[in-house]
Amino acid sequence: MPGELFLAEIHEQPASLRALLDAEDALADAGRALAQRAPRVVRLVGHGSSDNAATYAVYAFGLLAGWSALRDSISLTVYYGADLPFGDSAVIALSQSGRTPDVVAYVERARARGALTIAVTNEPGSDLAATSDLVLPLRAGTERAVAATKTYTNQLAAVALLAACAVDRRRAMIDALQAVAECAEQSLPQLAGDARRVAAPFTFVGRMVVIGRGVELATAREIALKLTETCRVAAEPMTTTELAHGPVTALDPLFPVWAIANDDPTFETMEAVLARAGETGATVVASGCAAERLAGASYSFPSPAAPMAELAPLLSVLPGQLFSAALARAKGLDPDRPEHLSKVTIAP
Amino acid sequence: MPGELFLAEIHEQPASLRALLDAEDALADAGRALAQRAPRVVRLVGHGSSDNAATYAVYAFGLLAGWSALRDSISLTVYYGADLPFGDSAVIALSQSGRTPDVVAYVERARARGALTIAVTNEPGSDLAATSDLVLPLRAGTERAVAATKTYTNQLAAVALLAACAVDRRRAMIDALQAVAECAEQSLPQLAGDARRVAAPFTFVGRMVVIGRGVELATAREIALKLTETCRVAAEPMTTTELAHGPVTALDPLFPVWAIANDDPTFETMEAVLARAGETGATVVASGCAAERLAGASYSFPSPAAPMAELAPLLSVLPGQLFSAALARAKGLDPDRPEHLSKVTIAP
Repeated sequence: MPGELFLAEIHEQPASLRALLDAEDALADAGRALAQRAPRVVRLVGHGSSDNAATYAVYAFGLLAGWSALRDSISLTVYYGADLPFGDSAVIALSQSGRTPDVVAYVERARARGALTIAVTNEPGSDLAATSDLVLPLRAGTERAVAATKTYTNQLAAVALLAACAVDRRRAMIDALQAVAECAEQSLPQLAGDARRVAAPFTFVGRMVVIGRGVELATAREIALKLTETCRVAAEPMTTTELAHGPVTALDPLFPVWAIANDDPTFETMEAVLARAGETGATVVASGCAAERLAGASYSFPSPAAPMAELAPLLSVLPGQLFSAALARAKGLDPDRPEHLSKVTIAP
Repeated sequence: MPGELFLAEIHEQPASLRALLDAEDALADAGRALAQRAPRVVRLVGHGSSDNAATYAVYAFGLLAGWSALRDSISLTVYYGADLPFGDSAVIALSQSGRTPDVVAYVERARARGALTIAVTNEPGSDLAATSDLVLPLRAGTERAVAATKTYTNQLAAVALLAACAVDRRRAMIDALQAVAECAEQSLPQLAGDARRVAAPFTFVGRMVVIGRGVELATAREIALKLTETCRVAAEPMTTTELAHGPVTALDPLFPVWAIANDDPTFETMEAVLARAGETGATVVASGCAAERLAGASYSFPSPAAPMAELAPLLSVLPGQLFSAALARAKGLDPDRPEHLSKVTIAP
């Protein structure tokens, strides 16, 4: 059946998360090395879903550890050979396959210039792992659908764990993530049914905006990528404020908005920007754990509440993944094997 | 006439750039303060076109000064109150109006925590200017169209100047930017005619991808924003590699690609990714100063070569601005006054 791998892997996420949490040794080693280095800057690199996990990492390190983290430009180091200061940095390289050539090349150069380098990958035997000082295996099991799901949520968890280790809160984070796995497991069957109902009226949609703020910017980027690669929708991710600063003018009833609202201090910006989007007549899907507090949405598709607001993105991505699976099916597309894509993007 | 302000301001860019270059004192002061501070990290903040100029700044500081620069998360500091290290940082806050509330709030907090703060704004009497340690006025003259053009190119120039000042190359950069102004002035009439011819067949397009790599990522983001806010096209900006890592599967002849190719070490990635885009049948517009080296494009719309590859984005944005003006006209839209937008976005 088209999309069966994608759907199966969405439902495997609680089990793959637990497998990661069981890998205490690798996690303790990487966390200790990072805490000892106490870098001035944490540099994240990755492409596609891995880059979306890097977006989350900026918030995870900022909120949990008070550290500055940035999604680094790979071009500056790999193509331009810029002379950047790496000695005060830790690098976290994210790649499901561990085979993305420019990520491997970046890590080689960063390590040679003195950065502490940590590979977060599903393939501990990969080039990326061999090139890095330390490896944190994702342990998500083989991901067979081209569109990433369980490796993405495990990347989020790995990043949250590393940030917690930096300030000696590893045990508390493992417990919180166990609760996330439990919550995801209980919610997924109901969410899958909801997704089929919400997706049906979107069968003919060709473009969408997906908005989130703060920790949910990563979720907005990841859901937009799922919609683009599995449903061929031109889905643009942006922050609430980016939408207000221009693109809001392009909205109309045929250009819907997927809004991810979190129960955190960014909620008021979401509320205010959705009020402006509403003036355009745009169809709004309210999602995220605070979906039900958003007024004026045409559809409400809440995600379950997380044990910590910082971990909400592990759960708020689930409705978007399931919606993409259902919409791809409604459009007659196969999310397991999108045209012109392969699981590992080798070049360039 | 609809769009007359937008078009007039596109053509004013050489004059507004020269006005910035004449402001030697403000520039020397800001440059000296930045060089003396020698920050570990340069933090950029801004929204919309200002955030696109911040994207450029990451490359300008990396390439010209060998400094680490990042587009900082405003949410982390303003909404979440994260405890980030600002004492080793310089902040460059970009806002045409100087009135964007969360940018002002960010600068207040960063300054209180010890960052050196520089406002780059067209309004030296604004709140942002009053809140910052130093002000670099853009001197672009009043921008009356809602969509930014001349303030954007002056922001790029201001950022390149600050990066050059950091390594004592101010004079050489002023000379190079004078050459850019001259080149823009000579090219604009011809480019405007080309834009009308290239835009006509895109009248019914509803979605586009705009790609660039390295320094041209900023241009991709800015052109996509112009297309979205003036032409109501769902235009997604991305790097060449991001396109290859998923969205390429959504392309087809009705989902065209605008490609900005620079004559720099990123050219080969552009060439390889466009070959993959070509397999989907997507219509490609080759732009940027290396447009004519790209094989297989349906349309070629080159920008003039810059005196330094790092300054190419000041010229490669011109075809995109003019194409947006022409396309808006063909679609019957008024780029001077897009619906649901105002020049200054106050909240939130």
